[in-house]
Amino acid sequence: MDERVWRVNVAEGTVRRDPVPTEWERLGGRGLIARASLDEIDPTCDPLGPGNKLVWASGLLVGHMLSSCDRISVGGKSPLTGGIKESNAGGSTGLKLAYLGVKALILEGPLLSSGWWLLHLSADGGALQPAEDLAGLGVHEAAHRLLERFGNKVGLALIGPGGEMRLQAAGIQNLDKDNEPSRINARGGLGALMGARRLKAVVIDSSQGEKPRLADAEGFKAAQKRFTQALMAHPQTAIYRDFGTAGLAAMVDGFGALPTCNFSIGHFQGIEGITGEHMRDVLLARGKPSDTSHACMAGCTIRSSNVFGSADGEKIVSPLEYETIGLVGSNLGIGDLDQIAHLNAAIDDLGLDSIEVGAALGVAAEAGLMAFGDAAGARGLVDEIRKGTPLGRVLGSGAAMTGQVFGIRRVPVVKRQSMPSYDPRAIKGTGVTYATSPQGADHTAGLTVRAKVDHLKPEGQAELSRGVQINMAGYDCLGVCIFAGFGFASAPGVIRELLMARYNWDGGEEVLQDLGRQTLRMEREFNLAAGFTAVDDRIPEWMRTEPLPPHATVFDIPDEELDGLWQSV
Amino acid sequence: MDERVWRVNVAEGTVRRDPVPTEWERLGGRGLIARASLDEIDPTCDPLGPGNKLVWASGLLVGHMLSSCDRISVGGKSPLTGGIKESNAGGSTGLKLAYLGVKALILEGPLLSSGWWLLHLSADGGALQPAEDLAGLGVHEAAHRLLERFGNKVGLALIGPGGEMRLQAAGIQNLDKDNEPSRINARGGLGALMGARRLKAVVIDSSQGEKPRLADAEGFKAAQKRFTQALMAHPQTAIYRDFGTAGLAAMVDGFGALPTCNFSIGHFQGIEGITGEHMRDVLLARGKPSDTSHACMAGCTIRSSNVFGSADGEKIVSPLEYETIGLVGSNLGIGDLDQIAHLNAAIDDLGLDSIEVGAALGVAAEAGLMAFGDAAGARGLVDEIRKGTPLGRVLGSGAAMTGQVFGIRRVPVVKRQSMPSYDPRAIKGTGVTYATSPQGADHTAGLTVRAKVDHLKPEGQAELSRGVQINMAGYDCLGVCIFAGFGFASAPGVIRELLMARYNWDGGEEVLQDLGRQTLRMEREFNLAAGFTAVDDRIPEWMRTEPLPPHATVFDIPDEELDGLWQSV
Repeated sequence: MDERVWRVNVAEGTVRRDPVPTEWERLGGRGLIARASLDEIDPTCDPLGPGNKLVWASGLLVGHMLSSCDRISVGGKSPLTGGIKESNAGGSTGLKLAYLGVKALILEGPLLSSGWWLLHLSADGGALQPAEDLAGLGVHEAAHRLLERFGNKVGLALIGPGGEMRLQAAGIQNLDKDNEPSRINARGGLGALMGARRLKAVVIDSSQGEKPRLADAEGFKAAQKRFTQALMAHPQTAIYRDFGTAGLAAMVDGFGALPTCNFSIGHFQGIEGITGEHMRDVLLARGKPSDTSHACMAGCTIRSSNVFGSADGEKIVSPLEYETIGLVGSNLGIGDLDQIAHLNAAIDDLGLDSIEVGAALGVAAEAGLMAFGDAAGARGLVDEIRKGTPLGRVLGSGAAMTGQVFGIRRVPVVKRQSMPSYDPRAIKGTGVTYATSPQGADHTAGLTVRAKVDHLKPEGQAELSRGVQINMAGYDCLGVCIFAGFGFASAPGVIRELLMARYNWDGGEEVLQDLGRQTLRMEREFNLAAGFTAVDDRIPEWMRTEPLPPHATVFDIPDEELDGLWQSV
Repeated sequence: MDERVWRVNVAEGTVRRDPVPTEWERLGGRGLIARASLDEIDPTCDPLGPGNKLVWASGLLVGHMLSSCDRISVGGKSPLTGGIKESNAGGSTGLKLAYLGVKALILEGPLLSSGWWLLHLSADGGALQPAEDLAGLGVHEAAHRLLERFGNKVGLALIGPGGEMRLQAAGIQNLDKDNEPSRINARGGLGALMGARRLKAVVIDSSQGEKPRLADAEGFKAAQKRFTQALMAHPQTAIYRDFGTAGLAAMVDGFGALPTCNFSIGHFQGIEGITGEHMRDVLLARGKPSDTSHACMAGCTIRSSNVFGSADGEKIVSPLEYETIGLVGSNLGIGDLDQIAHLNAAIDDLGLDSIEVGAALGVAAEAGLMAFGDAAGARGLVDEIRKGTPLGRVLGSGAAMTGQVFGIRRVPVVKRQSMPSYDPRAIKGTGVTYATSPQGADHTAGLTVRAKVDHLKPEGQAELSRGVQINMAGYDCLGVCIFAGFGFASAPGVIRELLMARYNWDGGEEVLQDLGRQTLRMEREFNLAAGFTAVDDRIPEWMRTEPLPPHATVFDIPDEELDGLWQSV
């Protein structure tokens, strides 16, 4: 019997190990979270109440330093959307949990009303320890102290003040390979679920752990080689290595889909100042610690991450990603990368989702709480969140809440979750993903921006989104970064081979799609039981009526196509 | 052709009169609002967007000064619940609209982004006039200026700063028979719909109007007499005349169901200071302008309203009702009627629902923003609303929003609307109404407190609530006050007779129930199309698990009974 489900009950101070239920065996990452949520969480429960759980699950391929395939999924019922939530991140948490043999780590049980705790995991098991001394600390200082206390080989998954305040934009930060707490399970307010159970951090000591056993080591090695070669040979890989995700800025702006001034325009006047090309020039000129190509996890060959340093050689933030450049930059009318980087650092340190906070600030600007383009004003609003003022709590609860409180109609959300940096009116396939994903608006659920289609035309977008959503859900079951998909796509059959060599399961030719479909069906089942209907699978009304410059386009995919998408999942 | 549907388009500055659609003819009040909403509002629309409408409709029996039967219904899609909303009020608006022959007054069309307007209605038609000078004024000062301008015979329906700010707790205040703007269409945020269209006030000059024509004047007179006699003879009538609704305080406290300190207890230590009996003693001792028995509309024989004056003879508020005593009194731990009256006056002047604001303040107290029992602290929070601070906007958006922003789980709402002053754990039939009414938590949708049942037992409550909900929906179609029901219940057939004599329609023996069932079915149809499911027909989770002292009871009506209730409507 394989006791690889670790159950943490902070109120009782216990960590128990349970066998893996048979139905969970062939699941991992996002799929396992969907299954565990259906099995153990009442979909109608109060997400911040005792009935909800928080589940960590590494992907099925995690543990072998396959390039960018060691991601950690976290999930449960979202405090933001009220539906199912899975959010995955890079860094070292996935790998270290796999080394400890943890199939699923489940935070559950009654709520505590006081105290702060940390969970220490090692090959000896788990133990809860007081962590009052970390209360109120940003993730950087908290991580620093934890690394001092537990040594700099441990992994960390921790919350900042945002999670402690149970804010709906709170995520969970993980250490990257340089021990920077910067790889965030950002979306859907999962940090609030740690906060609700007063768990500040998970410390993972995998020093006595071991690499997951392979059913066929030779076969795995061969498949791994084939995958890596395909990935390295793919032209996109080099682009991400040079420009990171920021390479998307010019492209999306070119499509007229760059969120600008609270999604009121799709082209930013100051685009030249925020492109990946410009950032690369700046960082190369600045030199260390700036770094244009940085890996978030050991073994990654893509290295899409970066380190953004100041002109005088201080690290400001790592990484500065496209989504943040869009939401905290152009969306706020801010065209200066240094200003964006400083804002990003402040949001990160609070342990908050920079997409959600950026969108909330855009709505706040529309409500007159800051001027578009005013970075100091934006910083003042982020400081309100840190202080926990009523205004700060509203902003830290995300764009939907901010819009409701201030009576703003132009709010870019689906299922209360903010849209990432692609306006759905001008990249309509991604709009279909926003509308129909059980996760709420989320680019990682099915980004279509690289598809060779006319993004402005409504025809064919639902079908396009459906395919990408299925694939992405599959990758999220494996622990695979969105970019590793380039490699898998050009090495047919290699996922099946890797799974065979790892587990001795033959998932069949369509194993990726089968995992994806199964996951999406479970997620949808959860959401239906939670009270979601077709009405929730919609782009906001104002985006269906208000034309987006420069292409004067609205979101016009017919409702029937959105609803029909599910018939073939 | 009978052009009695008046359509107001503020953006175009027009008031148009349309014929009454055939299907609307035999509908009035709440039922007509449900029909008009289904016919003209997309249930999925943004409630504060251009697709929503605001509909005024007098009840079918309005216009004849039948005792407490001249109520005005207002409704549309609720900004608070996101579902159908009807909220009715006494005062003179219903009667005056009926005198002008207005079957339905519909505010519609594009939104304006600046300016404030008033709508003047008379026998000559409707006209929009600038009303910038009234912007920001409380309802008392605004009403005062309007009465100076238009003479003191007009009716008024107007919003305060709450409606101007489009707050979700904003209602619409109507003049009572003494020209006090105190009869509020309180629930569901309908004031925000006037605010969204920048309409500050409706001025109704019915001086050239006329009493609605009767098909059979003699028959009407006879039926009216029978109704009035039955009403006067009913023992409850005298109780309401003596104590007003405040007579409920001791009774509900005795049931262990009085909301106390944010619905954490069902019995208030300071109950003696807030009973109807005590209030009567206080007001009688104080003398004029205090008045223990005051009519809100001309012709009312019940006179359940009151005027609450200070010890030195100043009017503080009129009326001080039981729901406010509960929500703003015991629910905040405040046991002093003068303090409650002052808070009530401040909330009224903002044009806000005192139930919603009281519940929001209870949640705020739980979040540490005021101490229970601290009336000055509560007043400070109400002042935040007037100032329009972020905290004020949160509180003015109601209890659900306040709970979400501050991370409080103990929030007494259904469909985001706050519960009135009966804890559903100890008066379970009313809990069934809260859960299942398409209106959200609302006592007027089906109060069971006077039924001769054990309110703590779950058995039979769903059936009890169903019957009362049907009757109340019927009364709301007629324009009939909840208390007039005493008279109708003891004069069988009189509603049918009145409708026959008024319209020459024979509604049949069950006309009241038929109107009620038809209305509930339409409302439910609207809500289903808006995305509501059985999940929305639930008492909050914490009330199903957290026992309420003193009877240590939880809300334990099975879900199947809640859902089954609709099968026989």
